[in-house]
Amino acid sequence: MTALPADGLMPFHALEILKRAKAIEATGRTVCHLEVGEPGAPPAPRVIEAVGRALPLAQGYTNAKGLSELREGLGAYYAAQHGVSVDPDSVLCTMGSSSGFIIAFHTAFRPGARIAITRPGYPAYVNSLLGLGFGIAEIPLSAENGWRLTGADIAAAHADTPFEGLLFASPANPTGATVDRAGLADVIATCQRLGVRLISDEIYHGLDYTGPSVSALELTRDAIVINSFSKYYCMTGWRIGWMVLPDDLVRRAEILQQNLFISAPTLSQIAATVALGERDYAEEQKAGYARNRTLLNDGLHALGFEIGAPSEGAFYAYAGISGFSNDAMGFCETLLDEAGVAVTPGIDFDRAGGNRYVRFSYAGKRESVELALERMGKFLG
Amino acid sequence: MTALPADGLMPFHALEILKRAKAIEATGRTVCHLEVGEPGAPPAPRVIEAVGRALPLAQGYTNAKGLSELREGLGAYYAAQHGVSVDPDSVLCTMGSSSGFIIAFHTAFRPGARIAITRPGYPAYVNSLLGLGFGIAEIPLSAENGWRLTGADIAAAHADTPFEGLLFASPANPTGATVDRAGLADVIATCQRLGVRLISDEIYHGLDYTGPSVSALELTRDAIVINSFSKYYCMTGWRIGWMVLPDDLVRRAEILQQNLFISAPTLSQIAATVALGERDYAEEQKAGYARNRTLLNDGLHALGFEIGAPSEGAFYAYAGISGFSNDAMGFCETLLDEAGVAVTPGIDFDRAGGNRYVRFSYAGKRESVELALERMGKFLG
Repeated sequence: MTALPADGLMPFHALEILKRAKAIEATGRTVCHLEVGEPGAPPAPRVIEAVGRALPLAQGYTNAKGLSELREGLGAYYAAQHGVSVDPDSVLCTMGSSSGFIIAFHTAFRPGARIAITRPGYPAYVNSLLGLGFGIAEIPLSAENGWRLTGADIAAAHADTPFEGLLFASPANPTGATVDRAGLADVIATCQRLGVRLISDEIYHGLDYTGPSVSALELTRDAIVINSFSKYYCMTGWRIGWMVLPDDLVRRAEILQQNLFISAPTLSQIAATVALGERDYAEEQKAGYARNRTLLNDGLHALGFEIGAPSEGAFYAYAGISGFSNDAMGFCETLLDEAGVAVTPGIDFDRAGGNRYVRFSYAGKRESVELALERMGKFLG
Repeated sequence: MTALPADGLMPFHALEILKRAKAIEATGRTVCHLEVGEPGAPPAPRVIEAVGRALPLAQGYTNAKGLSELREGLGAYYAAQHGVSVDPDSVLCTMGSSSGFIIAFHTAFRPGARIAITRPGYPAYVNSLLGLGFGIAEIPLSAENGWRLTGADIAAAHADTPFEGLLFASPANPTGATVDRAGLADVIATCQRLGVRLISDEIYHGLDYTGPSVSALELTRDAIVINSFSKYYCMTGWRIGWMVLPDDLVRRAEILQQNLFISAPTLSQIAATVALGERDYAEEQKAGYARNRTLLNDGLHALGFEIGAPSEGAFYAYAGISGFSNDAMGFCETLLDEAGVAVTPGIDFDRAGGNRYVRFSYAGKRESVELALERMGKFLG
């Protein structure tokens, strides 16, 4: 056990579990991978074909903001999916959503500023903010409210510990919780009232099971919107995403991109441009997640995990393990070592209450979910 | 003209010139691209072939540190090229050198710390450090000393304004200046004496015309070494690089990588693994740069640019323009608009004295250098 760095950084346990799982697989045993939020399918066939054609040609840097075809494609995407007009010049192509967060933080705030996040929430939020020298304020969410963030939650947290920014995802990781249009309008209005800059992480957009995802761009032009091709378009390893910036921040974001990253990977930008036209393929994958979602939720319920209705979006189930353990990492390690099922401990997402939860990703194949339920049934029985 | 952000960030003028050049090309005119430090050749044919084969398969995230084959290949590279043993576990694969710098800064220092850089130097150093909330101390170099950094320069600057770190490249951008083994030992010993952590940017290693590049790893294990496949291996747009970390920083760097970036692009990691075995191809490209280097240096001298002996490394000529202008950006814009030759103004590399210099990159094709010299001859004549 390595000592924690002094500033509160913690390892990303999902990746620790993945590393352990790969070591087990190296011994010849099989593992059901429900730990990493990664689609089991490759990108659409036409994406692969286009990259194969571009391979001998496209090697250099692109414009810092990204290929104009890709940014124009994203403009068309916002028109078609969200009914809003987005100027391609306000779009910046990033290395996954990861580099988008770094640019967003340093474009809208200065180190030392406090930015609010939800608890539970994506662990890289806390660790990136702390690692980059920002402060955090955690807004606790509750299972009773379906883990959904409200304006009242924001206002209460802000009264307690003021913050300059709010970073928030809907659909959310690890819970899949999704705010509807009224809920998002409440979040945005509260931010505006408090003078809080919103960063809307929309990486799970499209992976919605109860109605279309609502973009912050439908309701405001003051928010920074971050998105990625990793999830809906099955392109995690390609490290390609994008952000849409308010007018007052575009130029600074471009300068930061030039200096911090130069440009996003060229082949991945070409792949992403093609992927935007392959939504039928993406919808097929989503139909698979939708089937897994019900299967997993029912199965976990039957096994004794504490879990409510299936989440509205993303491809995660956040399930209580109080009946089995009060040590989520120990539970995950034992489940992996003894049953060959890899899941992520809740402490990744919630340092306060996460020991009572684990996160299951159902983005993989149906057989993997079925086998995992079978193996857990034997192990827990 | 957009106002500069308050914290001293400046746009990367090379990319501004590139954007302007692309706009000119869109009108049907040709441009000689000597502005961006980007090889004209694609990666080795076997790299392209291997990526083509991997395309349908390799889509997911890798281990945060990177593919073990790549890190083992880098260990073998250090043994073969530098005669040193590097544990693959101390290697972290990054998104070009760009993300390596971010991880290096935040692994070794905390925001607010002051880090020294040379003037002239790579502009992203200043802008990234300022953009991320670090302080800088500039160490002035002189044409008389061939733009080479010495221990005495470091000590003098440190006595004036103490700093915690030194970020330094040899061969250097924009000058190509290269310290030999004794010079590097002097730099390292001075850093150790002053308690300054060295970040050795070795991105131009291999592109050496007067003897093999010396890695900081040959002389110390306390430095952070940053390198990339962009230059020597002709892979700029692939955004793949690596860093080697001292034992005391490996774990923190891995945690930051997990959270800030997840992993480097998977296809680029595969490409890089193959590229390491294709040094013969890289040496062919280098032979072309070596020819360009002499051609350009002689040509610039004849045209009235102030320039000494050709630089020892990289693929840049840093030439004085006092005979023509005292406004480097204006000179570059006019040269581009009227003669169709794109070069980078010295103010990218030196905010104090850079208006008297421009940087030429000779990483492109010989014909491009010849045509640029011809066009400049007409324009300046």
